[in-house]
Amino acid sequence: MKNFKITVEYDGRNFAGWQRQSPAAGPTLQGALEEALSRLCHHPVTLHGSGRTDAGVHARGQTASFQTSSGRSSLEIVRGGNCLLPPEVAIVAAEEVGPDFHARFSCRGKTYDYDFLVSPTRRPLFQGRAWWVGPHLAWAEAAAALPALVGRHDFAAFQSSGSQVESTVRVIHQASLSRPGPEIQRLSLTGSGFLRHMVRAVAGLLVEIGRGRLPAASMPDIIKSRDRSRAGPTAPPDGLYLARVHYDL
Amino acid sequence: MKNFKITVEYDGRNFAGWQRQSPAAGPTLQGALEEALSRLCHHPVTLHGSGRTDAGVHARGQTASFQTSSGRSSLEIVRGGNCLLPPEVAIVAAEEVGPDFHARFSCRGKTYDYDFLVSPTRRPLFQGRAWWVGPHLAWAEAAAALPALVGRHDFAAFQSSGSQVESTVRVIHQASLSRPGPEIQRLSLTGSGFLRHMVRAVAGLLVEIGRGRLPAASMPDIIKSRDRSRAGPTAPPDGLYLARVHYDL
Repeated sequence: MKNFKITVEYDGRNFAGWQRQSPAAGPTLQGALEEALSRLCHHPVTLHGSGRTDAGVHARGQTASFQTSSGRSSLEIVRGGNCLLPPEVAIVAAEEVGPDFHARFSCRGKTYDYDFLVSPTRRPLFQGRAWWVGPHLAWAEAAAALPALVGRHDFAAFQSSGSQVESTVRVIHQASLSRPGPEIQRLSLTGSGFLRHMVRAVAGLLVEIGRGRLPAASMPDIIKSRDRSRAGPTAPPDGLYLARVHYDL
Repeated sequence: MKNFKITVEYDGRNFAGWQRQSPAAGPTLQGALEEALSRLCHHPVTLHGSGRTDAGVHARGQTASFQTSSGRSSLEIVRGGNCLLPPEVAIVAAEEVGPDFHARFSCRGKTYDYDFLVSPTRRPLFQGRAWWVGPHLAWAEAAAALPALVGRHDFAAFQSSGSQVESTVRVIHQASLSRPGPEIQRLSLTGSGFLRHMVRAVAGLLVEIGRGRLPAASMPDIIKSRDRSRAGPTAPPDGLYLARVHYDL
Protein backbone atom coordinates (compact mmCIF):
# COMPACT_ATOMS: atom_id res chain seq x y z
CA MET A 1 0.00 0.00 0.00
CA LYS A 2 1.17 3.49 -0.86
CA ASN A 3 0.04 6.51 1.15
CA PHE A 4 -0.41 9.75 -0.83
CA LYS A 5 -0.84 13.38 0.13
CA ILE A 6 -2.62 15.51 -2.45
CA THR A 7 -3.04 19.29 -2.63
CA VAL A 8 -6.31 20.46 -4.15
CA GLU A 9 -7.59 23.74 -5.59
CA TYR A 10 -11.31 24.35 -6.04
CA ASP A 11 -13.93 26.92 -6.82
CA GLY A 12 -16.52 26.06 -4.17
CA ARG A 13 -19.46 27.90 -5.69
CA ASN A 14 -21.22 24.84 -7.11
CA PHE A 15 -20.47 22.48 -4.23
CA ALA A 16 -22.30 21.65 -1.02
CA GLY A 17 -18.97 21.86 0.81
CA TRP A 18 -16.06 19.46 1.26
CA GLN A 19 -17.62 16.57 3.17
CA ARG A 20 -19.33 13.69 1.39
CA GLN A 21 -23.09 13.70 2.07
CA SER A 22 -26.21 12.02 0.74
CA PRO A 23 -26.53 12.76 -3.00
CA ALA A 24 -29.66 14.85 -2.35
CA ALA A 25 -27.47 17.46 -0.60
CA GLY A 26 -25.65 18.17 -3.87
CA PRO A 27 -22.13 17.48 -5.12
CA THR A 28 -19.25 17.62 -2.65
CA LEU A 29 -15.51 18.03 -3.13
CA GLN A 30 -14.72 14.86 -1.22
CA GLY A 31 -17.26 12.94 -3.30
CA ALA A 32 -15.89 14.25 -6.62
CA LEU A 33 -12.30 13.46 -5.62
CA GLU A 34 -13.09 9.99 -4.25
CA GLU A 35 -14.95 9.13 -7.44
CA ALA A 36 -12.08 10.27 -9.69
CA LEU A 37 -9.39 8.56 -7.57
CA SER A 38 -11.40 5.33 -7.31
CA ARG A 39 -11.69 5.18 -11.10
CA LEU A 40 -7.99 5.94 -11.47
CA CYS A 41 -6.93 3.36 -8.88
CA HIS A 42 -9.49 0.68 -9.83
CA HIS A 43 -10.55 0.24 -6.20
CA PRO A 44 -12.71 2.27 -3.79
CA VAL A 45 -10.66 5.14 -2.36
CA THR A 46 -11.41 6.77 0.99
CA LEU A 47 -10.05 10.31 1.16
CA HIS A 48 -9.16 12.03 4.43
CA GLY A 49 -9.27 15.82 4.10
CA SER A 50 -7.35 18.16 6.39
CA GLY A 51 -10.79 19.34 7.46
CA ARG A 52 -14.10 20.46 6.02
CA THR A 53 -14.87 23.58 4.09
CA ASP A 54 -18.45 24.86 3.91
CA ALA A 55 -20.66 25.30 0.85
CA GLY A 56 -19.39 28.09 -1.40
CA VAL A 57 -15.93 28.22 0.22
CA HIS A 58 -12.89 27.94 -2.08
CA ALA A 59 -9.44 26.40 -1.65
CA ARG A 60 -6.04 27.17 -3.09
CA GLY A 61 -4.31 24.50 -1.02
CA GLN A 62 -6.68 22.06 0.66
CA THR A 63 -4.86 18.79 1.44
CA ALA A 64 -6.07 15.21 1.70
CA SER A 65 -4.53 11.76 2.05
CA PHE A 66 -5.49 8.30 0.82
CA GLN A 67 -4.04 4.83 0.51
CA THR A 68 -3.90 2.80 -2.68
CA SER A 69 -2.69 -0.63 -3.75
CA SER A 70 -2.80 0.45 -7.40
CA GLY A 71 0.87 1.28 -7.94
CA ARG A 72 -0.08 4.68 -9.40
CA SER A 73 2.69 7.29 -9.34
CA SER A 74 2.34 10.87 -8.10
CA LEU A 75 2.40 12.13 -11.69
CA GLU A 76 -0.36 9.70 -12.70
CA ILE A 77 -2.48 10.84 -9.76
CA VAL A 78 -2.14 14.49 -10.79
CA ARG A 79 -2.61 14.00 -14.52
CA GLY A 80 -5.11 11.15 -14.44
CA GLY A 81 -7.07 12.67 -11.58
CA ASN A 82 -7.39 16.01 -13.35
CA CYS A 83 -8.74 14.33 -16.48
CA LEU A 84 -11.48 12.68 -14.43
CA LEU A 85 -12.38 15.64 -12.19
CA PRO A 86 -14.91 18.37 -13.03
CA PRO A 87 -13.41 21.73 -14.11
CA GLU A 88 -14.08 23.34 -10.71
CA VAL A 89 -11.63 20.95 -8.91
CA ALA A 90 -8.03 19.99 -9.61
CA ILE A 91 -5.18 18.14 -7.91
CA VAL A 92 -2.32 20.64 -8.10
CA ALA A 93 0.25 18.36 -6.42
CA ALA A 94 0.62 14.78 -5.17
CA GLU A 95 3.41 13.12 -3.24
CA GLU A 96 3.97 9.74 -1.67
CA VAL A 97 4.25 10.09 2.11
CA GLY A 98 5.11 7.77 5.00
CA PRO A 99 2.47 5.34 6.31
CA ASP A 100 1.81 7.49 9.40
CA PHE A 101 0.84 10.63 7.47
CA HIS A 102 -2.84 11.54 7.77
CA ALA A 103 -4.04 14.84 6.26
CA ARG A 104 -6.14 15.67 9.32
CA PHE A 105 -4.26 14.17 12.26
CA SER A 106 -0.82 15.25 11.02
CA CYS A 107 -2.00 18.83 10.40
CA ARG A 108 -0.21 21.47 12.53
CA GLY A 109 -2.05 24.55 11.28
CA LYS A 110 -3.89 26.29 8.48
CA THR A 111 -3.89 29.58 6.65
CA TYR A 112 -7.20 31.04 5.48
CA ASP A 113 -7.60 34.10 3.27
CA TYR A 114 -10.76 36.19 3.18
CA ASP A 115 -11.11 38.56 0.21
CA PHE A 116 -13.16 41.76 0.49
CA LEU A 117 -14.14 43.50 -2.77
CA VAL A 118 -13.48 47.24 -2.40
CA SER A 119 -15.48 48.97 -5.12
CA PRO A 120 -18.32 51.49 -5.48
CA THR A 121 -20.31 48.96 -7.55
CA ARG A 122 -20.60 45.19 -7.59
CA ARG A 123 -18.05 43.62 -9.94
CA PRO A 124 -18.99 40.61 -12.08
CA LEU A 125 -15.39 39.43 -12.41
CA PHE A 126 -15.32 38.90 -8.62
CA GLN A 127 -18.80 37.42 -8.30
CA GLY A 128 -18.89 34.53 -5.81
CA ARG A 129 -15.18 35.08 -5.14
CA ALA A 130 -15.06 38.08 -2.79
CA TRP A 131 -17.44 39.92 -0.45
CA TRP A 132 -18.47 43.29 -1.85
CA VAL A 133 -18.25 45.77 1.06
CA GLY A 134 -18.19 49.09 -0.81
CA PRO A 135 -15.36 51.60 -1.18
CA HIS A 136 -15.46 53.52 2.11
CA LEU A 137 -14.20 51.20 4.85
CA ALA A 138 -11.50 52.40 7.25
CA TRP A 139 -9.08 49.55 6.57
CA ALA A 140 -6.33 50.95 8.81
CA GLU A 141 -8.77 50.86 11.73
CA ALA A 142 -9.75 47.27 10.85
CA ALA A 143 -6.06 46.29 10.66
CA ALA A 144 -5.45 47.84 14.09
CA ALA A 145 -7.82 45.25 15.60
CA LEU A 146 -5.87 42.25 14.29
CA PRO A 147 -2.89 42.02 16.70
CA ALA A 148 -5.28 41.27 19.58
CA LEU A 149 -6.24 38.03 17.81
CA VAL A 150 -2.69 36.69 17.83
CA GLY A 151 -1.83 34.21 20.56
CA ARG A 152 -3.69 31.53 22.52
CA HIS A 153 -7.27 32.59 23.19
CA ASP A 154 -10.69 31.15 23.79
CA PHE A 155 -12.40 32.11 20.53
CA ALA A 156 -15.96 31.14 21.54
CA ALA A 157 -17.11 34.64 20.46
CA PHE A 158 -16.18 33.68 16.88
CA GLN A 159 -17.81 30.27 16.74
CA SER A 160 -21.10 29.74 14.93
CA SER A 161 -23.85 29.34 17.50
CA GLY A 162 -24.89 25.76 18.13
CA SER A 163 -21.41 24.31 17.45
CA GLN A 164 -20.25 21.61 19.83
CA VAL A 165 -16.51 21.13 20.17
CA GLU A 166 -14.53 20.04 23.22
CA SER A 167 -12.50 23.22 23.43
CA THR A 168 -12.87 26.63 21.83
CA VAL A 169 -9.24 27.54 22.58
CA ARG A 170 -7.08 28.04 19.49
CA VAL A 171 -3.70 29.62 18.75
CA ILE A 172 -3.49 32.31 16.07
CA HIS A 173 0.06 32.73 14.78
CA GLN A 174 -0.48 35.51 12.28
CA ALA A 175 -3.27 37.93 11.33
CA SER A 176 -2.87 40.53 8.59
CA LEU A 177 -4.59 42.63 5.96
CA SER A 178 -2.95 43.04 2.55
CA ARG A 179 -3.85 44.44 -0.87
CA PRO A 180 -3.09 41.83 -3.55
CA GLY A 181 -4.85 43.89 -6.24
CA PRO A 182 -6.51 47.30 -6.62
CA GLU A 183 -9.98 45.90 -5.84
CA ILE A 184 -9.15 43.41 -3.07
CA GLN A 185 -8.38 43.72 0.65
CA ARG A 186 -7.26 40.31 1.90
CA LEU A 187 -7.52 39.14 5.50
CA SER A 188 -5.03 36.35 6.14
CA LEU A 189 -5.12 34.23 9.30
CA THR A 190 -2.71 31.44 10.23
CA GLY A 191 -3.53 29.34 13.26
CA SER A 192 -3.34 25.96 14.91
CA GLY A 193 -6.93 25.38 13.91
CA PHE A 194 -10.17 27.25 13.41
CA LEU A 195 -13.65 26.93 14.88
CA ARG A 196 -16.62 26.61 12.56
CA HIS A 197 -17.23 29.97 10.75
CA MET A 198 -14.40 31.54 12.78
CA VAL A 199 -12.66 33.26 9.83
CA ARG A 200 -16.00 34.50 8.50
CA ALA A 201 -16.89 35.84 11.96
CA VAL A 202 -13.57 37.70 12.14
CA ALA A 203 -14.20 39.04 8.60
CA GLY A 204 -17.66 40.22 9.64
CA LEU A 205 -16.25 41.95 12.69
CA LEU A 206 -13.55 43.72 10.65
CA VAL A 207 -16.27 45.20 8.44
CA GLU A 208 -18.14 46.43 11.53
CA ILE A 209 -14.92 48.08 12.71
CA GLY A 210 -14.13 49.46 9.23
CA ARG A 211 -17.62 51.00 9.10
CA GLY A 212 -17.07 52.70 12.46
CA ARG A 213 -19.70 50.68 14.32
CA LEU A 214 -17.12 49.30 16.74
CA PRO A 215 -13.66 50.62 17.68
CA ALA A 216 -10.56 48.53 16.91
CA ALA A 217 -9.80 48.62 20.62
CA SER A 218 -12.92 46.57 21.38
CA MET A 219 -11.29 43.36 20.06
CA PRO A 220 -9.79 42.15 23.39
CA ASP A 221 -13.11 42.65 25.19
CA ILE A 222 -15.03 40.85 22.45
CA ILE A 223 -12.65 37.88 22.68
CA LYS A 224 -12.94 37.84 26.48
CA SER A 225 -16.74 38.00 26.35
CA ARG A 226 -16.96 34.57 24.63
CA ASP A 227 -20.30 35.97 23.36
CA ARG A 228 -21.06 35.35 19.67
CA SER A 229 -23.54 38.23 19.60
CA ARG A 230 -20.76 40.74 20.42
CA ALA A 231 -18.63 39.97 17.33
CA GLY A 232 -20.94 41.04 14.51
CA PRO A 233 -22.33 39.14 11.52
CA THR A 234 -20.81 36.11 9.81
CA ALA A 235 -19.38 37.11 6.42
CA PRO A 236 -20.65 35.18 3.36
CA PRO A 237 -18.65 32.17 2.14
CA ASP A 238 -17.82 33.86 -1.21
CA GLY A 239 -14.61 35.51 -0.02
CA LEU A 240 -13.17 32.58 1.94
CA TYR A 241 -10.21 30.51 0.68
CA LEU A 242 -8.39 27.71 2.46
CA ALA A 243 -4.97 28.91 1.35
CA ARG A 244 -2.53 26.42 2.88
CA VAL A 245 -2.43 23.51 5.31
CA HIS A 246 0.74 23.33 7.40
CA TYR A 247 2.44 20.14 8.54
CA ASP A 248 5.64 21.68 9.90
CA LEU A 249 4.62 24.71 11.93
CA MET B 1 -33.23 63.69 -24.41
CA LYS B 2 -30.14 62.87 -22.38
CA ASN B 3 -27.21 60.98 -23.90
CA PHE B 4 -25.36 58.61 -21.54
CA LYS B 5 -22.06 56.79 -21.71
CA ILE B 6 -21.85 53.68 -19.55
CA THR B 7 -18.83 51.52 -18.66
CA VAL B 8 -19.59 47.83 -18.26
CA GLU B 9 -17.80 44.88 -16.67
CA TYR B 10 -18.81 41.31 -17.51
CA ASP B 11 -17.85 37.70 -17.18
CA GLY B 12 -18.54 36.50 -20.73
CA ARG B 13 -18.63 32.77 -20.04
CA ASN B 14 -22.39 32.37 -20.11
CA PHE B 15 -23.06 34.77 -22.98
CA ALA B 16 -23.24 34.35 -26.75
CA GLY B 17 -21.15 37.52 -27.10
CA TRP B 18 -22.00 41.22 -26.99
CA GLN B 19 -24.31 41.66 -29.95
CA ARG B 20 -28.07 41.15 -29.66
CA GLN B 21 -29.18 38.10 -31.67
CA SER B 22 -32.23 35.90 -32.04
CA PRO B 23 -33.12 34.42 -28.62
CA ALA B 24 -32.21 30.93 -29.89
CA ALA B 25 -28.53 31.98 -30.02
CA GLY B 26 -28.49 32.44 -26.25
CA PRO B 27 -28.26 35.48 -23.96
CA THR B 28 -26.17 38.45 -25.08
CA LEU B 29 -24.64 41.34 -23.17
CA GLN B 30 -26.36 43.95 -25.32
CA GLY B 31 -29.69 42.18 -24.84
CA ALA B 32 -29.30 41.97 -21.05
CA LEU B 33 -28.29 45.63 -20.79
CA GLU B 34 -31.03 46.90 -23.12
CA GLU B 35 -33.64 44.96 -21.15
CA ALA B 36 -32.44 46.36 -17.80
CA LEU B 37 -32.14 49.94 -19.10
CA SER B 38 -35.54 49.79 -20.82
CA ARG B 39 -37.17 48.72 -17.56
CA LEU B 40 -35.32 51.43 -15.69
CA CYS B 41 -36.18 54.16 -18.22
CA HIS B 42 -39.75 52.99 -18.93
CA HIS B 43 -39.17 53.14 -22.69
CA PRO B 44 -37.33 50.91 -25.19
CA VAL B 45 -33.59 51.65 -25.05
CA THR B 46 -31.22 51.03 -27.96
CA LEU B 47 -27.65 50.59 -26.79
CA HIS B 48 -24.63 51.32 -29.00
CA GLY B 49 -21.57 49.37 -27.86
CA SER B 50 -18.01 50.46 -28.65
CA GLY B 51 -17.84 47.22 -30.64
CA ARG B 52 -18.65 43.54 -30.29
CA THR B 53 -16.99 40.98 -28.12
CA ASP B 54 -17.26 37.29 -28.98
CA ALA B 55 -18.84 34.50 -26.95
CA GLY B 56 -16.82 33.75 -23.81
CA VAL B 57 -14.85 37.02 -23.95
CA HIS B 58 -14.84 39.21 -20.82
CA ALA B 59 -14.73 42.97 -20.28
CA ARG B 60 -13.38 45.19 -17.53
CA GLY B 61 -14.24 48.39 -19.40
CA GLN B 62 -16.59 47.90 -22.34
CA THR B 63 -18.41 51.15 -23.13
CA ALA B 64 -21.81 51.84 -24.66
CA SER B 65 -24.06 54.84 -25.20
CA PHE B 66 -27.82 55.35 -25.26
CA GLN B 67 -30.39 58.12 -25.24
CA THR B 68 -33.26 58.44 -22.80
CA SER B 69 -36.14 60.82 -22.19
CA SER B 70 -36.61 59.38 -18.70
CA GLY B 71 -34.76 61.99 -16.66
CA ARG B 72 -32.76 59.24 -14.91
CA SER B 73 -29.50 60.42 -13.31
CA SER B 74 -26.10 58.75 -13.73
CA LEU B 75 -26.34 57.38 -10.20
CA GLU B 76 -29.79 55.93 -10.87
CA ILE B 77 -28.50 54.26 -14.03
CA VAL B 78 -25.63 52.62 -12.13
CA ARG B 79 -27.62 51.57 -9.05
CA GLY B 80 -30.93 50.79 -10.74
CA GLY B 81 -29.28 49.07 -13.68
CA ASN B 82 -27.20 46.83 -11.43
CA CYS B 83 -30.30 45.74 -9.50
CA LEU B 84 -31.94 44.64 -12.76
CA LEU B 85 -28.90 43.02 -14.43
CA PRO B 86 -27.82 39.39 -13.96
CA PRO B 87 -24.80 38.86 -11.65
CA GLU B 88 -22.41 38.34 -14.58
CA VAL B 89 -22.88 41.95 -15.83
CA ALA B 90 -22.65 45.31 -14.09
CA ILE B 91 -22.56 48.99 -14.99
CA VAL B 92 -19.45 50.24 -13.17
CA ALA B 93 -19.84 53.89 -14.26
CA ALA B 94 -22.30 56.15 -16.08
CA GLU B 95 -21.98 59.76 -17.18
CA GLU B 96 -24.09 62.17 -19.17
CA VAL B 97 -22.28 63.13 -22.38
CA GLY B 98 -22.87 65.60 -25.19
CA PRO B 99 -25.42 64.77 -27.91
CA ASP B 100 -22.67 63.94 -30.42
CA PHE B 101 -21.05 61.21 -28.33
CA HIS B 102 -21.49 57.71 -29.78
CA ALA B 103 -19.68 54.80 -28.10
CA ARG B 104 -18.59 53.33 -31.44
CA PHE B 105 -18.10 56.32 -33.73
CA SER B 106 -16.40 58.48 -31.07
CA CYS B 107 -13.99 55.66 -30.12
CA ARG B 108 -10.29 56.45 -30.74
CA GLY B 109 -8.80 53.15 -29.60
CA LYS B 110 -9.04 50.12 -27.34
CA THR B 111 -6.90 48.16 -24.94
CA TYR B 112 -7.30 44.40 -24.77
CA ASP B 113 -5.66 42.11 -22.22
CA TYR B 114 -5.06 38.42 -22.83
CA ASP B 115 -4.28 36.32 -19.73
CA PHE B 116 -2.19 33.14 -20.00
CA LEU B 117 -2.29 30.74 -17.05
CA VAL B 118 1.29 29.64 -16.27
CA SER B 119 1.02 26.50 -14.15
CA PRO B 120 2.02 22.82 -14.31
CA THR B 121 -1.63 21.82 -13.77
CA ARG B 122 -4.96 23.31 -14.73
CA ARG B 123 -6.27 25.67 -12.04
CA PRO B 124 -9.97 25.77 -11.16
CA LEU B 125 -9.78 29.32 -9.79
CA PHE B 126 -8.80 30.51 -13.29
CA GLN B 127 -11.22 28.30 -15.23
CA GLY B 128 -12.79 30.17 -18.16
CA ARG B 129 -10.72 33.23 -17.25
CA ALA B 130 -7.24 32.47 -18.64
CA TRP B 131 -5.67 30.14 -21.21
CA TRP B 132 -3.68 27.36 -19.54
CA VAL B 133 -0.42 27.07 -21.49
CA GLY B 134 1.76 25.12 -19.01
CA PRO B 135 4.78 26.27 -17.04
CA HIS B 136 7.60 26.08 -19.58
CA LEU B 137 7.11 28.86 -22.13
CA ALA B 138 10.01 31.16 -22.99
CA TRP B 139 8.21 34.42 -22.14
CA ALA B 140 11.24 36.62 -22.80
CA GLU B 141 11.36 35.26 -26.35
CA ALA B 142 7.61 35.89 -26.78
CA ALA B 143 8.04 39.46 -25.46
CA ALA B 144 10.86 40.04 -27.95
CA ALA B 145 8.36 39.59 -30.79
CA LEU B 146 6.03 42.35 -29.59
CA PRO B 147 7.81 45.56 -30.69
CA ALA B 148 7.38 44.54 -34.35
CA LEU B 149 3.59 44.81 -33.87
CA VAL B 150 3.73 48.48 -32.87
CA GLY B 151 2.96 51.01 -35.59
CA ARG B 152 0.72 51.10 -38.65
CA HIS B 153 0.57 47.72 -40.34
CA ASP B 154 -1.69 45.62 -42.49
CA PHE B 155 -2.71 42.94 -39.97
CA ALA B 156 -4.45 40.60 -42.43
CA ALA B 157 -2.29 37.74 -41.08
CA PHE B 158 -4.10 38.14 -37.73
CA GLN B 159 -7.66 38.31 -39.02
CA SER B 160 -9.98 35.32 -38.74
CA SER B 161 -10.36 33.75 -42.16
CA GLY B 162 -13.59 34.69 -43.91
CA SER B 163 -13.80 38.17 -42.38
CA GLN B 164 -14.77 40.96 -44.73
CA VAL B 165 -13.70 44.46 -43.74
CA GLU B 166 -12.78 47.37 -45.99
CA SER B 167 -9.25 47.68 -44.68
CA THR B 168 -7.07 45.40 -42.59
CA VAL B 169 -4.69 48.25 -41.71
CA ARG B 170 -4.62 49.14 -38.02
CA VAL B 171 -2.32 51.12 -35.73
CA ILE B 172 -0.94 49.42 -32.62
CA HIS B 173 0.23 51.96 -30.03
CA GLN B 174 1.49 49.62 -27.35
CA ALA B 175 2.18 45.89 -26.97
CA SER B 176 3.53 44.39 -23.75
CA LEU B 177 3.71 41.32 -21.54
CA SER B 178 3.39 41.74 -17.77
CA ARG B 179 2.98 39.53 -14.70
CA PRO B 180 0.04 40.77 -12.63
CA GLY B 181 0.15 37.67 -10.39
CA PRO B 182 2.30 34.60 -9.86
CA GLU B 183 0.15 32.46 -12.18
CA ILE B 184 -0.65 34.96 -14.94
CA GLN B 185 1.27 36.34 -17.92
CA ARG B 186 -0.75 39.18 -19.42
CA LEU B 187 -0.50 40.35 -23.01
CA SER B 188 -1.73 43.92 -23.32
CA LEU B 189 -2.40 45.57 -26.69
CA THR B 190 -3.56 49.13 -27.28
CA GLY B 191 -4.52 50.13 -30.79
CA SER B 192 -6.73 52.24 -33.00
CA GLY B 193 -8.90 49.21 -33.57
CA PHE B 194 -8.67 45.46 -33.89
CA LEU B 195 -9.68 42.97 -36.57
CA ARG B 196 -11.90 40.06 -35.67
CA HIS B 197 -9.93 37.56 -33.50
CA MET B 198 -6.80 39.71 -33.89
CA VAL B 199 -5.79 39.71 -30.21
CA ARG B 200 -6.46 35.98 -29.95
CA ALA B 201 -4.34 35.38 -33.08
CA VAL B 202 -1.46 37.39 -31.57
CA ALA B 203 -1.88 35.41 -28.32
CA GLY B 204 -1.75 32.14 -30.26
CA LEU B 205 1.39 33.25 -32.08
CA LEU B 206 3.11 34.25 -28.83
CA VAL B 207 2.56 30.75 -27.51
CA GLU B 208 4.08 29.28 -30.69
CA ILE B 209 7.11 31.52 -30.16
CA GLY B 210 7.27 30.77 -26.43
CA ARG B 211 7.28 27.05 -27.24
CA GLY B 212 10.16 27.48 -29.66
CA ARG B 213 8.19 26.60 -32.80
CA LEU B 214 8.84 30.02 -34.32
CA PRO B 215 11.59 32.58 -33.57
CA ALA B 216 10.65 36.01 -32.22
CA ALA B 217 12.39 37.49 -35.25
CA SER B 218 9.77 35.97 -37.57
CA MET B 219 7.14 38.53 -36.52
CA PRO B 220 7.89 41.15 -39.22
CA ASP B 221 7.76 38.50 -41.97
CA ILE B 222 4.51 37.07 -40.64
CA ILE B 223 2.93 40.55 -40.65
CA LYS B 224 4.20 41.20 -44.19
CA SER B 225 2.90 37.85 -45.44
CA ARG B 226 -0.73 38.85 -44.78
CA ASP B 227 -1.24 35.07 -44.55
CA ARG B 228 -3.42 33.87 -41.67
CA SER B 229 -1.88 30.38 -41.86
CA ARG B 230 1.57 31.77 -40.97
CA ALA B 231 0.54 33.23 -37.61
CA GLY B 232 -0.42 30.12 -35.67
CA PRO B 233 -3.66 29.11 -33.94
CA THR B 234 -6.34 31.41 -32.55
CA ALA B 235 -6.21 31.38 -28.74
CA PRO B 236 -9.47 30.48 -26.92
CA PRO B 237 -11.77 33.31 -25.77
CA ASP B 238 -11.26 32.45 -22.07
CA GLY B 239 -8.24 34.70 -21.56
CA LEU B 240 -9.49 37.76 -23.46
CA TYR B 241 -10.64 40.94 -21.70
CA LEU B 242 -11.71 44.22 -23.28
CA ALA B 243 -9.84 46.32 -20.73
CA ARG B 244 -10.52 49.92 -21.78
CA VAL B 245 -12.07 51.92 -24.61
CA HIS B 246 -10.28 55.19 -25.34
CA TYR B 247 -11.97 58.40 -26.48
CA ASP B 248 -8.99 60.73 -26.13
CA LEU B 249 -6.00 58.92 -27.64
